[in-house]
Amino acid sequence: MRRSGIITLLTDFGDRDPFVGVMRGVILSRFPEARIVDLVHQIPPQRVRAGAFWLERAHRWFPEGTVHVAVIDPGVGTERRIVGASADGHLFLAPDNGLLGPVLENSQKTRVVLLDLERLSALGIDPPSATFHGRDIFAPLAAEMAAQRLRLRALGPVIETDALVPSALPRPIEKKDRVEGEVVVVDRFGNLITNIPGENVGPKAAVEIRGKQIPLARTYGDVAAGAYLALVSSFDRLEIARAEGSAAEGLAATVGERVVVTSPVLRDAHS
Amino acid sequence: MRRSGIITLLTDFGDRDPFVGVMRGVILSRFPEARIVDLVHQIPPQRVRAGAFWLERAHRWFPEGTVHVAVIDPGVGTERRIVGASADGHLFLAPDNGLLGPVLENSQKTRVVLLDLERLSALGIDPPSATFHGRDIFAPLAAEMAAQRLRLRALGPVIETDALVPSALPRPIEKKDRVEGEVVVVDRFGNLITNIPGENVGPKAAVEIRGKQIPLARTYGDVAAGAYLALVSSFDRLEIARAEGSAAEGLAATVGERVVVTSPVLRDAHS
Amino acid sequence: MRRSGIITLLTDFGDRDPFVGVMRGVILSRFPEARIVDLVHQIPPQRVRAGAFWLERAHRWFPEGTVHVAVIDPGVGTERRIVGASADGHLFLAPDNGLLGPVLENSQKTRVVLLDLERLSALGIDPPSATFHGRDIFAPLAAEMAAQRLRLRALGPVIETDALVPSALPRPIEKKDRVEGEVVVVDRFGNLITNIPGENVGPKAAVEIRGKQIPLARTYGDVAAGAYLALVSSFDRLEIARAEGSAAEGLAATVGERVVVTSPVLRDAHS
Repeated sequence: MRRSGIITLLTDFGDRDPFVGVMRGVILSRFPEARIVDLVHQIPPQRVRAGAFWLERAHRWFPEGTVHVAVIDPGVGTERRIVGASADGHLFLAPDNGLLGPVLENSQKTRVVLLDLERLSALGIDPPSATFHGRDIFAPLAAEMAAQRLRLRALGPVIETDALVPSALPRPIEKKDRVEGEVVVVDRFGNLITNIPGENVGPKAAVEIRGKQIPLARTYGDVAAGAYLALVSSFDRLEIARAEGSAAEGLAATVGERVVVTSPVLRDAHS
Repeated sequence: MRRSGIITLLTDFGDRDPFVGVMRGVILSRFPEARIVDLVHQIPPQRVRAGAFWLERAHRWFPEGTVHVAVIDPGVGTERRIVGASADGHLFLAPDNGLLGPVLENSQKTRVVLLDLERLSALGIDPPSATFHGRDIFAPLAAEMAAQRLRLRALGPVIETDALVPSALPRPIEKKDRVEGEVVVVDRFGNLITNIPGENVGPKAAVEIRGKQIPLARTYGDVAAGAYLALVSSFDRLEIARAEGSAAEGLAATVGERVVVTSPVLRDAHS
Repeated sequence: MRRSGIITLLTDFGDRDPFVGVMRGVILSRFPEARIVDLVHQIPPQRVRAGAFWLERAHRWFPEGTVHVAVIDPGVGTERRIVGASADGHLFLAPDNGLLGPVLENSQKTRVVLLDLERLSALGIDPPSATFHGRDIFAPLAAEMAAQRLRLRALGPVIETDALVPSALPRPIEKKDRVEGEVVVVDRFGNLITNIPGENVGPKAAVEIRGKQIPLARTYGDVAAGAYLALVSSFDRLEIARAEGSAAEGLAATVGERVVVTSPVLRDAHS
């Protein structure tokens, strides 16, 4: 596997405390050349779903050999498991709570291992605290892996993907004449990002949310200020937006809101 | 032109989504040695004015050869143009919406080029999405320019500065006995930062906002807690502050509020 | 002293203005190889106490030879002093307002020097503005120190620790059968972090806040959703939390709230 020297961090730690800064200190202590990138830390506390969505969509913009650390971890310190994975040349570390589901579902070549906590000491990692595994387990392992001093296989036994906690991200449902999905993220601009792939949204598609038909467009500036539009987002998912405004506010819609595409492009039943 | 290897990012993307993180991934994929600095990402959505102010004031604190990327871009994906510029040894990429106005007005040696989208493919850049040019156009161009593999002139034709959309930042008006400006930024501490240069504020100046005379001082600690003061800020602009408090809240003032300096130092009519 | 090349930044500057970005520009202009880490910038304006707490707890996770810059500085530009310090192999720069107190109290080997402003010019540092010493004094000094071109001793005369403004962080009070402390930080998750060291909290300890007894636990997942728990945090301080909720909201408690541990482990009177 290539080495990029990059470690990305995705957490729900926010920025009002030095939690992320301390993880950087631990990483740099072990691997001074690491290039650490904050993917996002403002995932709402314990919203595994939003983290799972963005981890899968965002990691593809990094070079192969990058180590992606995802810590949304309400079960920290309990019996919940920690997993490492490789997927199409990228490496991942996360709690086993569904965070890695979309990455594994959408990658061709994957391997998953279960972290064996008994091996931590042999790997040169001190006994962890009960409440900050981001600092005590994830950061040092990521540093060692990014430095290519630690191989995925050394973390513990390989397990099957279907032995993991199921994906935190619901899949859209394809019916005969429609695709039913839901809003999975509301972004900073109030755009409603759904779990419906762009490939389902053909030029004849009709998009409905909260009983309202939303016309298709290509970009925000294509409609009048204040108008709603449905578009395939730059991350290739159906998005409902409002020009120069917030669709989330205007439609009083949030995560979990049902979205229906009629006259969709349905995927080949064989694919 | 020198190379600093530094790329600064100024956007209205905020931090609740991984948009900035993904731009970093794109930059590092092309130019692993890049030193990427977040200038600011919390410009309120689509407030080109605040971005234009800070881009001009802040970029001077970076070494020459730095590439500054500014993406406040309500027109993304429409016919709005993208421009590159050099100004006194710094390089800039931004949409043509007034963001670069203050930089160009306040620099001695400038050159502006219009990005020719037809050339992107020849420059090794994939066809962009309609809604995230920060990732698809600005980030890869900035990486190539910072790596000195791409010269400004290669982006497209040189154009005159006055062919650009006018500056988003209003200039203060100098009258016979006064300078009239306005609040252009409210900072984190509630300080009201105006567009009036420090050189207009002599020791005899009287400062008025919302019908209130504000006494001049040198720094916050020079007046009693709760008192208002006017000072020349560390970015050389007239600022109205409140000791141990928020002038914005106390005066119920925000961006656009008129500020008048009487008995100012007027600039030489020839300058 | 070792060199790590790392500079950490802890401020109350927030992220809505480019203040931190500009500090990075100044640092990189002088020391391009610097690895700059944001420890935290969301300390509430002028809350020296929270900054003092986190600076001490967090800096230990960085390698020796790191330069830690702490700028919570309501007195900027007044007669307040600036100090440099070394403590157990780490270097510090901060205003003399109690920020460094906990670091110095909890380190074995310390030295404190008073910055002699008359020397700045000889050190190659331009005359500072009155209101942004983070950019004009702290950043350039940190860059020079991290690059090992400037020794602590060159900043000015050595002074005794007890000549500094007293620590901004209160110490818990040990009584015969109890330890009385207080909440010193409320973190992102609403956890109430106190100034009571983990060593005071034995397995028999009883924890009280706002008249409520809080049972001890090891981690958040050890109690039912909604239940309160007291635990020794990952930063070795007594913390009061609520499983899948916010203790701060649930208990209507904030910084300064009194916390009492009865049946504590008391420290040896000789230590």
